[in-house]
Amino acid sequence: MKKSAPENLLMVAASESDANLYYATRFVAPDPFIFMRLHGKAYLLMNDLEVDRARKQASVDTVVSLSQLSHEFKKQHGRRARYPEIITFFLKRNRVHKLRVPENFPLWLADDLRRQKIELACSSGQLFPERMVKTPAELAAIRKAIAHTEKAISKSFEVLRRSVIRRGRLYYEGNVLTSERIKKILHLSLMEDGCIGSHSIVACGEQCVDPHDEGSGPLYANQSIIFDIFPKDAGSRYYADISRTVVRGTASPKLKAMYQAVLDGQKIGFTKIRDGVDGAHIHAAIQKMFEDRGFRTGQFGGRMQGFFHGTGHGLGLDIHEEPRISLGSSILRTGQVVTVEPGLYYSGIGGVRIEDDVLVTKTGCVNLVRLPKRLEI
Amino acid sequence: MKKSAPENLLMVAASESDANLYYATRFVAPDPFIFMRLHGKAYLLMNDLEVDRARKQASVDTVVSLSQLSHEFKKQHGRRARYPEIITFFLKRNRVHKLRVPENFPLWLADDLRRQKIELACSSGQLFPERMVKTPAELAAIRKAIAHTEKAISKSFEVLRRSVIRRGRLYYEGNVLTSERIKKILHLSLMEDGCIGSHSIVACGEQCVDPHDEGSGPLYANQSIIFDIFPKDAGSRYYADISRTVVRGTASPKLKAMYQAVLDGQKIGFTKIRDGVDGAHIHAAIQKMFEDRGFRTGQFGGRMQGFFHGTGHGLGLDIHEEPRISLGSSILRTGQVVTVEPGLYYSGIGGVRIEDDVLVTKTGCVNLVRLPKRLEI
Repeated sequence: MKKSAPENLLMVAASESDANLYYATRFVAPDPFIFMRLHGKAYLLMNDLEVDRARKQASVDTVVSLSQLSHEFKKQHGRRARYPEIITFFLKRNRVHKLRVPENFPLWLADDLRRQKIELACSSGQLFPERMVKTPAELAAIRKAIAHTEKAISKSFEVLRRSVIRRGRLYYEGNVLTSERIKKILHLSLMEDGCIGSHSIVACGEQCVDPHDEGSGPLYANQSIIFDIFPKDAGSRYYADISRTVVRGTASPKLKAMYQAVLDGQKIGFTKIRDGVDGAHIHAAIQKMFEDRGFRTGQFGGRMQGFFHGTGHGLGLDIHEEPRISLGSSILRTGQVVTVEPGLYYSGIGGVRIEDDVLVTKTGCVNLVRLPKRLEI
Repeated sequence: MKKSAPENLLMVAASESDANLYYATRFVAPDPFIFMRLHGKAYLLMNDLEVDRARKQASVDTVVSLSQLSHEFKKQHGRRARYPEIITFFLKRNRVHKLRVPENFPLWLADDLRRQKIELACSSGQLFPERMVKTPAELAAIRKAIAHTEKAISKSFEVLRRSVIRRGRLYYEGNVLTSERIKKILHLSLMEDGCIGSHSIVACGEQCVDPHDEGSGPLYANQSIIFDIFPKDAGSRYYADISRTVVRGTASPKLKAMYQAVLDGQKIGFTKIRDGVDGAHIHAAIQKMFEDRGFRTGQFGGRMQGFFHGTGHGLGLDIHEEPRISLGSSILRTGQVVTVEPGLYYSGIGGVRIEDDVLVTKTGCVNLVRLPKRLEI
């Protein structure tokens, strides 16, 4: 990255929630801080609270003390600097007046810097395209997160299996088995392994016809239950993302047909994914197969039904990142990790989504998820 | 909020990580979506995946389908709309060409909309100042998160208490007691109660001289251990934030003096906090007391030492929000919830931080935290 001096770059964000800034610095902080790459050298401008930790932990060339800079500004100008003026002060000292900034650069700061005659070129698309291609260490981190997720889902399936069916409802250890109970089992297992699960989906029956309904209340026998679990490993900060659909008891023939179609949709993905392929073609092929089998997509009975989300997305420091396997064109490349998660959703029948994470290779892909797929448990 | 038609407003963000957008819509989504307030009416523009859930869950006047809008754009213009063009299309239909946007509005979108002759006035400071003052429901959510946090910290203190000291190290159930082990106990307890702890600090000895060092490795007897635990309640999305400093065994006289000074610093806060007071005055009073007692702040031996962070911050949907009790002026108002967390940090002696969360009232403040404070355990 630093061989030929790349474009000058400015980022101001909290790396806790901004994956690009974490990627650039490997430093986690809860509040916004200033990162610059000037003439090929990486700088952090840090307040008193973070400056020493940044010097120890951040992978940049130089960590500069903001209060030292403020002090120098005051000596030179006879007054306290506003925050954006400190940035300009540092840029002028380094003879830089033109920088690239990320798409999500905060507008208030951009407007202020531009008034100070700093030229900002807003990045269109990805700031660090190299983030898509995973290093061996990144791949290992994702594999580890996946293993923890598989373990948590297996534990919760075991509870489902041991649950008792009474008048269509599931009971476990004498109590009504709920989505909340299963999510707690999942989240505690993940936490035991250092992973943070949040917004996990355990949605049953009509609930799971809405792909982002997180699910709540009692779980029912003979109805589809979608599990979509996407924790972040708190240590590595990398995500896993796995979905399974199960029925405790007996699935209806219609649900079984949907399940088979979604499995076959995944197979289309696994067969077509390889270096150089456009994600849009894969998504279109799965859509076509669904339509061919009579699984139509659109607004029916006042709600979206069929297959109305993307087939997959990149996975890494963000749960949803580039590339995409979806409507828009997006070329897959060796070393990327993407999800393959077709789904079908019909009111009155239920929802099915099955999701694995695969590594794109020169000639195909490697499925990183080994958790079995079986509808009825 | 909607009595007199307020300014037109545009936000595009993921409410999962943008508290203002969640506050405006009470709708959580992992990917960016479009919110507008036009002529006093609140709108969401949602993609197929989220449109039905938004209609059910979001507290806005109208949820508009993005694909429906795209369809209408195409009919009118004979081509597919770019994302920013759909926003402009909708604005024109509502005869709006001038809007306020939040500070952190993404630059790429602002630049694009401005090229389309949409005037954007970037909010300076807070978008929703009313977010600072907590409603009874919000206060109850914070109290609940605090109760769960107190319980988790108490559990971990119990483990410290039951630990055995051998050659200066702590052992528990036969194993070296580590920061990681204690954090797992804390996080599992929090997760049991539906709270997500992350970046919790359990830092011992020289580690805790850096206020944001999360701590790692063995815990030692007779040294300061700082606990700073700030989980989010996954249900309500509100935070708690509590710090305690303890020593397993015997504290040095110097550490005891620091502890007493920090306790007294908190007392200054509790005494001075009330409606109308400037946080900067409170912070200055605590700084002065520390200096008067000989606890100097500055760069000594190549690192920041003394009291080099703020006294407190607002607490709510964000862990750090307005108002501040710090260097800059910030007037406290009835109904705000703020932390009071002075600290002292000296290399070779250790770190002390004690933090409670208080509700600002007309005549003073109410401490919402009841967890005891005792240095030696």
